[in-house]
Amino acid sequence: MNPTCPTSPFDTEAPLPSALVTVRPTRLGGPAREDEEWVAEEVPVALEYNGLSQAVMLATPLDLEDFALGFSLSEGLIATPADLLDIEIQTRPNGVALQLRVTARCELLLKERRRSMAGRTGCGLCGTDNLDQVFRPPAQPVPALPVDRSQLIPVLSRAMRELAEAQPLQQRSGGIHAAAWCGPDGAVRLVREDVGRHNALDKLIGALARAGTDTAAGFAAVTSRASFEMVQKAAGAGMPMLAAVSAPTHLAIRTAQACGLTLAGFVREGRATLYS
Amino acid sequence: MNPTCPTSPFDTEAPLPSALVTVRPTRLGGPAREDEEWVAEEVPVALEYNGLSQAVMLATPLDLEDFALGFSLSEGLIATPADLLDIEIQTRPNGVALQLRVTARCELLLKERRRSMAGRTGCGLCGTDNLDQVFRPPAQPVPALPVDRSQLIPVLSRAMRELAEAQPLQQRSGGIHAAAWCGPDGAVRLVREDVGRHNALDKLIGALARAGTDTAAGFAAVTSRASFEMVQKAAGAGMPMLAAVSAPTHLAIRTAQACGLTLAGFVREGRATLYS
Repeated sequence: MNPTCPTSPFDTEAPLPSALVTVRPTRLGGPAREDEEWVAEEVPVALEYNGLSQAVMLATPLDLEDFALGFSLSEGLIATPADLLDIEIQTRPNGVALQLRVTARCELLLKERRRSMAGRTGCGLCGTDNLDQVFRPPAQPVPALPVDRSQLIPVLSRAMRELAEAQPLQQRSGGIHAAAWCGPDGAVRLVREDVGRHNALDKLIGALARAGTDTAAGFAAVTSRASFEMVQKAAGAGMPMLAAVSAPTHLAIRTAQACGLTLAGFVREGRATLYS
Repeated sequence: MNPTCPTSPFDTEAPLPSALVTVRPTRLGGPAREDEEWVAEEVPVALEYNGLSQAVMLATPLDLEDFALGFSLSEGLIATPADLLDIEIQTRPNGVALQLRVTARCELLLKERRRSMAGRTGCGLCGTDNLDQVFRPPAQPVPALPVDRSQLIPVLSRAMRELAEAQPLQQRSGGIHAAAWCGPDGAVRLVREDVGRHNALDKLIGALARAGTDTAAGFAAVTSRASFEMVQKAAGAGMPMLAAVSAPTHLAIRTAQACGLTLAGFVREGRATLYS
């Protein structure tokens, strides 16, 4: 055991950490710049349902109510926003705990799920420890795309242009992903940021659910690649399209095709690639 | 349930999938290009220890023996490479299963860990379901940096230059991360690629362990950001430095400082930022 390496860099109980922190690193080479710079905070966030630990995610400590709801919906831990009765955010020595109060029906389902997994642990895919649990078809059919094919390029270009200007954390620190909800004209209506791209999308899904937004009437745009889990989250939330700045994976493409979700990759000014 | 969305895009038992697949997407806008393009495969990979499911990760189906060993070491599921007696790779309808045979001592520890978590599930941080399990100090002190401070810029620049040329999957598909092992002169000696940046680093750690490489005698360079988990993996593997192309998080910086690991971010030709 290295005596200079404590168990946790979180030393004390404290208020919720800021999403950005200033540091004074040492710059080598290149042009002289200011000594101080912003970096993104990253905090272990434990999700507890009716007092039972379910998961720990590393996340940006911002919009955690949205994250709690979006994660719970995306992972199928609750069926509707009404199943989540209350959220309490607690700062703990080693991170942040989200104390979620869910309905008795959800608690029963969670406990059954736990019993079926008793004696095992899971990871990577949020409590998943065997291959049969990976693919979760959306509960509802994916709605039709509310954008005419001929309008896709101007709509997607507008979405990415506006998204690039709507990332206050990323603009300062450079280490943060964002997920945006866009109208059928490409106008960005809501943005959530997080050090994790999955978390950013879960926060967006939670924010839309809290606002009662009709997810059939727009699409999601993300600053990252489009992996399988991103497609599964978007389809599960009833979104007709996921538009990503970067590349999709093959599994993401096949999942989008199977679900009827429109998947656009390499979305840049004036161009995009449609994979499904 | 959407009848058009099957449970799994993996329809049949098949040989191990290729790491890259060609697709024929629809290109909108921009200059005309070839119709066919490469995309990265992404496969659910289940890790089973002495027959017990432990985790499912989404990964590139390449260098899976390295992944099995590196993941097991990084997550503390085995203490030394000798604890992993055998690896069998099985292609299953929904993905790939890594059947790991570990020593009786490891199986006992795994079962104790399972018992202590019985009735709970974990995720995000690989089987972690409460905050106290997040921070794992390295078993050994982090070794001293084998590069003289005055040589850091040429050494880091060489590493990133050579790494950029040593990513065959990324060069074709654009959706893949890489982790490289570099000598004290910055020469890239080993590269592992994966759709997930954590997986790429775990594969590198596994490959180094399999080769019996002295991890005190070089450093790791990664194409991604430097998050807490990347720092924890590098320090746990006994590496003196982690060099990242992009930004670190604040938790990564604090963890590196606490462990004595040198953390370099924004490493580009001729410049870098030292955060610890």
